[in-house]
Amino acid sequence: MPQSDTNGRILYEDNDHKFIWLGADPVYRKGVVQTNQFLIIDRGVGILLDPGGVHLFSRVVSMLSRYIPLDKIEHIFFSHQDPDVSSGITLWLGVTRAKVYISDLWVRFLPHFGIVDNSRMVPIPDGGSSLRLPSGAQLRFIPSHFLHSVGSFCAFDDRASILFSSDIGAAVFPEGKERVMVEDFTEHLPYIDAFHKRYMCSNAAVRKWVSMVEPLSPRMICPQHGAIYEGDSVRSFLGWMRELRCGIDLVDDIYRS
Amino acid sequence: MPQSDTNGRILYEDNDHKFIWLGADPVYRKGVVQTNQFLIIDRGVGILLDPGGVHLFSRVVSMLSRYIPLDKIEHIFFSHQDPDVSSGITLWLGVTRAKVYISDLWVRFLPHFGIVDNSRMVPIPDGGSSLRLPSGAQLRFIPSHFLHSVGSFCAFDDRASILFSSDIGAAVFPEGKERVMVEDFTEHLPYIDAFHKRYMCSNAAVRKWVSMVEPLSPRMICPQHGAIYEGDSVRSFLGWMRELRCGIDLVDDIYRS
Repeated sequence: MPQSDTNGRILYEDNDHKFIWLGADPVYRKGVVQTNQFLIIDRGVGILLDPGGVHLFSRVVSMLSRYIPLDKIEHIFFSHQDPDVSSGITLWLGVTRAKVYISDLWVRFLPHFGIVDNSRMVPIPDGGSSLRLPSGAQLRFIPSHFLHSVGSFCAFDDRASILFSSDIGAAVFPEGKERVMVEDFTEHLPYIDAFHKRYMCSNAAVRKWVSMVEPLSPRMICPQHGAIYEGDSVRSFLGWMRELRCGIDLVDDIYRS
Repeated sequence: MPQSDTNGRILYEDNDHKFIWLGADPVYRKGVVQTNQFLIIDRGVGILLDPGGVHLFSRVVSMLSRYIPLDKIEHIFFSHQDPDVSSGITLWLGVTRAKVYISDLWVRFLPHFGIVDNSRMVPIPDGGSSLRLPSGAQLRFIPSHFLHSVGSFCAFDDRASILFSSDIGAAVFPEGKERVMVEDFTEHLPYIDAFHKRYMCSNAAVRKWVSMVEPLSPRMICPQHGAIYEGDSVRSFLGWMRELRCGIDLVDDIYRS
């Protein structure tokens, strides 16, 4: 990817509102899954999406500080409970005054990362919820249960028309093949196929999710791993997902293999 | 529960082999899910099962030190990637020389907890694997994928005839109702029903799992949360599980609610 992208990229911008990809780890780390972090700034208020685990903390702090002071981060969204998503929680609670939004299913589990102040946790109920931002924009928490976590959410920024999709759409690139944007969906498919078949729980859940996302007509879909979908590749990806047989649909193969 | 149980309880013992429940947190912590930790000792070699997150570390170290020196812990099994299971990994790798056994699906995610030495990770393939202990006993890693994690395992100690079942069989007790053993399965049901319906992914996976566990005829089933099943309650629990509709089977209700 271009060298400049190690410093991030602004994916949407108007006078009141920005949606920013916070860049890639410049060093490929063997055996460690690569992650994307995203920052929304709305009239000076910062919202972090899946800021990641302990080992990324200092890089993410330094990246976001180019765009907004740390003490302006008021909201942190965790799509689910995995270590690469949320294990930095105690560090983030320490350096910001942010509230944390996560599925109601995981609130009682997060204190196991260390000391966590429950008064700063905002549980998201199964049906979803939303956050009104100062400009009037809404960040909507869209259910994505069983894709893969039993309690998980995507976050849709209606002003930027960008869906942060967590593990849905995630790509696993071989070393040297990383890219920021999906350029051709057919060429991208080999990097997403195996991951989705094994980690996504079932076509029944996939179809529920697609039926909620398609009416939003997102301009971009930003997963937590891999490349960003835009325009045609959004439509191709959603079409592919709708037909995906995965997880429980292949349970005999998975238990036997 | 009896005061003495805060110090643990030996569930199986012969000259070469012990299976030990490491006791309950003596202080009920509001808003934090309670967890069980288990220790196997086989001819002086220690194996820890789901030793838990950061906030339990010092208690678990002090409990297990009553039974075995810390430097004799040679194996640590993590049933899946949740914070209450594995977020203490960097601490455990620091104070022991143990190898860590976890689903192949999560090996690349664990470094997000902090610095992890990949040479000490032993990935378990989807079909399971086993660990031969010095006495000749086997610890078998039995697939439990989608119950709840997409990549998860139980651990069966064939000498003790005890199955460590991770989240399967977990109970959520109201304050003051905690107990170590399931005394009557029908009375126990209200504490397990809602959790299993929401966190377990599907009856198709449950049936695969029951079909692998029943032939083992475990004397006890020890979940990571709640109480231990023994004798009749093992059979009642497996029978109930087989018929359980859960997760994806109820997907319309879960996405709508």
